Amino acid sequence: MNAQVQTTEANGRPSRDLPPEALRMLIRSGRYQGATSGLAPGFVQGNLVILPKGLASDFLAFAHQNPRPCPVIGLSEPGSPRMPDLGTSIDLRTDLPRYRVWKNGELVSEVPDIHDDWRDDLVSFVIGCSFSFEEALLEDGIPLRHVASGANVAMYRTNIACTPAGPFAGPMVVSMRPLKAADAIRAIQITSRFPAVHGAPVHLGDPALIGIENLAKPDYGDAVEVKDDEIPVFWACGVTPQAVIAAAKPAFAITHAPGSMLITDKRNSRMSAF
Amino acid sequence: MNAQVQTTEANGRPSRDLPPEALRMLIRSGRYQGATSGLAPGFVQGNLVILPKGLASDFLAFAHQNPRPCPVIGLSEPGSPRMPDLGTSIDLRTDLPRYRVWKNGELVSEVPDIHDDWRDDLVSFVIGCSFSFEEALLEDGIPLRHVASGANVAMYRTNIACTPAGPFAGPMVVSMRPLKAADAIRAIQITSRFPAVHGAPVHLGDPALIGIENLAKPDYGDAVEVKDDEIPVFWACGVTPQAVIAAAKPAFAITHAPGSMLITDKRNSRMSAF
Repeated sequence: MNAQVQTTEANGRPSRDLPPEALRMLIRSGRYQGATSGLAPGFVQGNLVILPKGLASDFLAFAHQNPRPCPVIGLSEPGSPRMPDLGTSIDLRTDLPRYRVWKNGELVSEVPDIHDDWRDDLVSFVIGCSFSFEEALLEDGIPLRHVASGANVAMYRTNIACTPAGPFAGPMVVSMRPLKAADAIRAIQITSRFPAVHGAPVHLGDPALIGIENLAKPDYGDAVEVKDDEIPVFWACGVTPQAVIAAAKPAFAITHAPGSMLITDKRNSRMSAF
Repeated sequence: MNAQVQTTEANGRPSRDLPPEALRMLIRSGRYQGATSGLAPGFVQGNLVILPKGLASDFLAFAHQNPRPCPVIGLSEPGSPRMPDLGTSIDLRTDLPRYRVWKNGELVSEVPDIHDDWRDDLVSFVIGCSFSFEEALLEDGIPLRHVASGANVAMYRTNIACTPAGPFAGPMVVSMRPLKAADAIRAIQITSRFPAVHGAPVHLGDPALIGIENLAKPDYGDAVEVKDDEIPVFWACGVTPQAVIAAAKPAFAITHAPGSMLITDKRNSRMSAF
């Protein structure tokens, strides 16, 4: 047994043994700018949205009205890059591998550090992510095809309208996982315990009933096979707030880059309501 | 306001206001021999199975191995017609409207009182019933078509084998309720809280996957329409133990007559695990 924890694997990925804070320090140093999926197993990862204070209250109202696609698990003080509820050492300006900076709805840069873009009026939102409930499903023995094949989950725009707030409005985006019926029932039980990370599915079965024309053509992520003995099960997705922000074209916004999440000190099990 | 509770309605049915014990006394007197559905709302009703002691341990093992179709909520001492856990005043020989007496798997009589058939070696089982979870679904605003139309729930033999015990073996029987997807998801959440009355569904979607060829032709109960925007949802059913007992052809058995259940003093909410 080696008492010392290896920082990186042979493939350049951080070691899965690294605890959240050590991972964030590695990322803060600029030595890792890749995807975070599979890192710090057992700990919550979150989507990041940063908006000027003038828009933050409308966005918070939007999240409040649409808790399934937009569960806020962390909210900063205006101007503060700290998020103590999710980790005392977190610095939101440096601790994600990559960020996207947006102006008037246009992507203007993708950077590993947002010190240069930081402003005193910025409010940060961390939004729960399906990684947390997927871990609970996998630990229960429920197979997830996109995870097994190393693909991104399939996501679709629906005809389910979010409740609008200020400039924020648009359709709910859902992620889809094909499951056998017994696994679908069990997955509903498990994810119902996790309202802070999208909770129970919003739909299952016929995709047309929520406005999805072709399962083989997701709007985001990768298509996944649905076998004859499986049912497509649809969860509200954290891409919804991103799509809504892109559509609202705020003068200024920062988000995480896809797959490059905030790794927190909070355990996934603590996302369980009971 | 009339301080006195009416015993019967104009239609001859007992008043819905009658509490469980008063209802049992009315039934014990022989003045009501009809169906119990809708009576004593809020209180548990149970299926009754009475077997000679020599078969009771195998039947209990069967129930233990198959808790979804066969949830035992009451078990008597051998020879005792009492079931104090479900109601201190219960006398199982008189308190159900009608009983069926079976010999070697053949129905030999249907009677309102089993004093004449009682034996000192009989063990009684009360088995949870879907009335309890249907009440929870209806109270949550989930429509149940068979209830709305006053029909019996549709039930089907499946290709899901029960785990055998002694002479007791056979396929699981399920009940089916057509639900819209969002209601199906909610129904899974609600019934998961009620493991003692069949719990979560065992299947949803394609009936062929559990060996049901034609939903329009139930093996028991009444057919019910499944609309285009609905999913058939299948729960393990208390008819399973009855079917299994009929197949095992015990020398002697007594059961409730269909729809003529034991009304208990236990509240449905106490069937909830959490």
